[in-house]
Amino acid sequence: MNDETTQPPAGPTLSRRRLFAVSAAVGSSLGLGSATAALAAGPPAAHAREDAAHGHPAIVPFLGEHQGGITMPQQRYTYFAAFDCAAKKRDELVALLRAWTDAGARLTAGQTVEAAAGRYDAAKPVGDSGEALGLSPAHLTLTVGFGAGLFSKDGVDRYGLAAQRPAAFVDLPRFPGEQLIPEKTGGDLSVQACADDPQVAFHAVRQLARLASGVAQVRWVQSGFLPDDRGKETPRNLMGFKDGTQECSDLTKFVWAGKEAPRWMQGGTYLVVRRIRIALEHWDQMNVGFQEQTIGRKKISGAPLGMTSESDPLPLAATDKDGNPIIAENAHVRLGNASTNNGQQILRRGYSYNDGVNFVAERWPPWRQGMEYDAGLLFVCYQRDPRTGFIPMFDTMSKIDMLNQFATHTGGGLFAIPRGAANGEYIGQGLLASG
Amino acid sequence: MNDETTQPPAGPTLSRRRLFAVSAAVGSSLGLGSATAALAAGPPAAHAREDAAHGHPAIVPFLGEHQGGITMPQQRYTYFAAFDCAAKKRDELVALLRAWTDAGARLTAGQTVEAAAGRYDAAKPVGDSGEALGLSPAHLTLTVGFGAGLFSKDGVDRYGLAAQRPAAFVDLPRFPGEQLIPEKTGGDLSVQACADDPQVAFHAVRQLARLASGVAQVRWVQSGFLPDDRGKETPRNLMGFKDGTQECSDLTKFVWAGKEAPRWMQGGTYLVVRRIRIALEHWDQMNVGFQEQTIGRKKISGAPLGMTSESDPLPLAATDKDGNPIIAENAHVRLGNASTNNGQQILRRGYSYNDGVNFVAERWPPWRQGMEYDAGLLFVCYQRDPRTGFIPMFDTMSKIDMLNQFATHTGGGLFAIPRGAANGEYIGQGLLASG
Repeated sequence: MNDETTQPPAGPTLSRRRLFAVSAAVGSSLGLGSATAALAAGPPAAHAREDAAHGHPAIVPFLGEHQGGITMPQQRYTYFAAFDCAAKKRDELVALLRAWTDAGARLTAGQTVEAAAGRYDAAKPVGDSGEALGLSPAHLTLTVGFGAGLFSKDGVDRYGLAAQRPAAFVDLPRFPGEQLIPEKTGGDLSVQACADDPQVAFHAVRQLARLASGVAQVRWVQSGFLPDDRGKETPRNLMGFKDGTQECSDLTKFVWAGKEAPRWMQGGTYLVVRRIRIALEHWDQMNVGFQEQTIGRKKISGAPLGMTSESDPLPLAATDKDGNPIIAENAHVRLGNASTNNGQQILRRGYSYNDGVNFVAERWPPWRQGMEYDAGLLFVCYQRDPRTGFIPMFDTMSKIDMLNQFATHTGGGLFAIPRGAANGEYIGQGLLASG
Repeated sequence: MNDETTQPPAGPTLSRRRLFAVSAAVGSSLGLGSATAALAAGPPAAHAREDAAHGHPAIVPFLGEHQGGITMPQQRYTYFAAFDCAAKKRDELVALLRAWTDAGARLTAGQTVEAAAGRYDAAKPVGDSGEALGLSPAHLTLTVGFGAGLFSKDGVDRYGLAAQRPAAFVDLPRFPGEQLIPEKTGGDLSVQACADDPQVAFHAVRQLARLASGVAQVRWVQSGFLPDDRGKETPRNLMGFKDGTQECSDLTKFVWAGKEAPRWMQGGTYLVVRRIRIALEHWDQMNVGFQEQTIGRKKISGAPLGMTSESDPLPLAATDKDGNPIIAENAHVRLGNASTNNGQQILRRGYSYNDGVNFVAERWPPWRQGMEYDAGLLFVCYQRDPRTGFIPMFDTMSKIDMLNQFATHTGGGLFAIPRGAANGEYIGQGLLASG
């Protein structure tokens, strides 16, 4: 008889059904950690799990100078979550971030969130929801961010952190054309899980959300994906264009906060996330030539207009025989290019999102109404300072980008991503242990 | 100079910007199919694309006795769409199904939806949205179904098909506890795309939806996924349990419509799809023992309660020393088992779904309100006759299944899946060419 077989115990105050349940959970007559131990150890053993396609463990270290999930090659899936803090005191926040740090280290290593040590109490909830058992760590990364509300909310400095707010951590201005849905915007804390398996990414956030019970509650989430290009090509977005050709040339200069920042942000960065709905039905009505003019690149090859290869530089000064720029003044790639932005760059790490359909009445030709895709781009970018990064770049884009007739920003936020935690530290310790 | 370079043509009635766009699309001065040809041929050539992990083309044949995507091992992603028909006449339906059949054959082969042949008209929309260019065919299958509304809607026999409605194609009854959202329920036509890449699955439905313009409009959609278990284990659902252990033992007997059905349904089957929201936060509050009692299997191993291995038969007659069944009378696996259902079986092909969060006020303990996961199970099953398959099985389940306190059916439908198309035929031809 195996040790998980039911053995009804005595217990006059519990119903028979309840007893039955408890007995199965407790497992053996020892009543010691069998279920949790099994969950935490899990077959196959977490650390031994290999990435079958690559023959090495698909584990990204959680601790380090920088948080994970920012500069590494993009995993295929993301699950982003923003939280509202309900904590009354800073201590609760500290406990939460400590718990998240411990959990993050375990989860990214492919383990369950609760350790095998300790008694298993059958009357308490299970320590891990279990849907990642047996799966690869899938290069899971968890990136934790702080929203403005952590420093001050509705004028109240709840946690005594207002004086610690970095100068670079401004509020995003209102941009022309954006239609931000409050329920999909902002948040006091953010967690972005990225992994090569959507179930692994969701599992991780789900555990962190449960650990936050009573201290922080999910405000909004957004999942995203990339196509399975197997790393051979720049992935195409849902507009059918290669997306992400242009990479950031200097992480130290453009991404990581330096000496100008408070100590806890040095090695950190600022995350701008935007949920950008694309009117795919409208886009699909356009001919390829118009689409290419809008983007500034060719659809098939990804080459800049007027060039032959995806990796060719943008010929921003090139004109046709009539003197018109080959890449239009209001083409998307021109507006995103460093030379149009005082030499500034951002690190883009976007995903497509696909949230099904809902009812839309278009304001523009073809004035269609009906069910339309709620799909598009989960724009994610990192920068050293949003005042020189996303804000001025998108200020121009939001006014003249040809893509605007297809793109609507419906949510998002700006989050300070503190530097990574060293061994024994928790994420954000430099901030929360201050003052 | 490559053939995609812009060459502004003459054209006094068009604006400069417009000309610019047109010229880029037309491409060469020949004005002959260059853009479409490139899209359709696409680098790398569709037919040459290989599944990198397996070294063989990841193509599932579209034509055949049965439609694809029913009995083969499940692909990792699905995108299901139900359509309302706006067609006034049967001819329009015929044209749509012919177009879908042609497109289905191309798409499942990893090709773009429009053929390279024919002139490319720069003033017309692009023939394929392009986001699957360069991707593997990813074992894409497209499974087309007919809803009750095709035979008669609001008492009107729009297409002269009412007399052809099979006896087995009843309406689903109202089940206790279900909370079907009209906007996520029903439909006159269904298309289920399954593929190993979510972008490939969505791309396929997107093309079919565009081909349906004016004839059928998307009513609701639902995407789904499985974890990346690499085929080594039965995948776990979001409740953390292995799901799909029990397979259908006899497809001819339980899945494919036979001589009892009209000719066009012989080799077809009936699809029941249900969007089942699982109260994950509530579930996560339960202890493992209770979860195992609810399901009737062990969480870690997947073994039936009282047994040791996942593949062990359910010990439905076994009792503990007090005479209580080891697998409870209202455990989920018991209620789904053939022996509880007059020996009847269904073929399950479900996916998890994850649609983020939305606001919920629970009716049950712990009476929580706030943002909760809109996630759970996209239940998909096939059967020869829903009157002996899903309907009686779920009738019992909906009344006594312990799982009901966590599961809410929020949408879905019943669709007749006609037999597969032979070469030269279109899907459903046996029905639509009749009478």
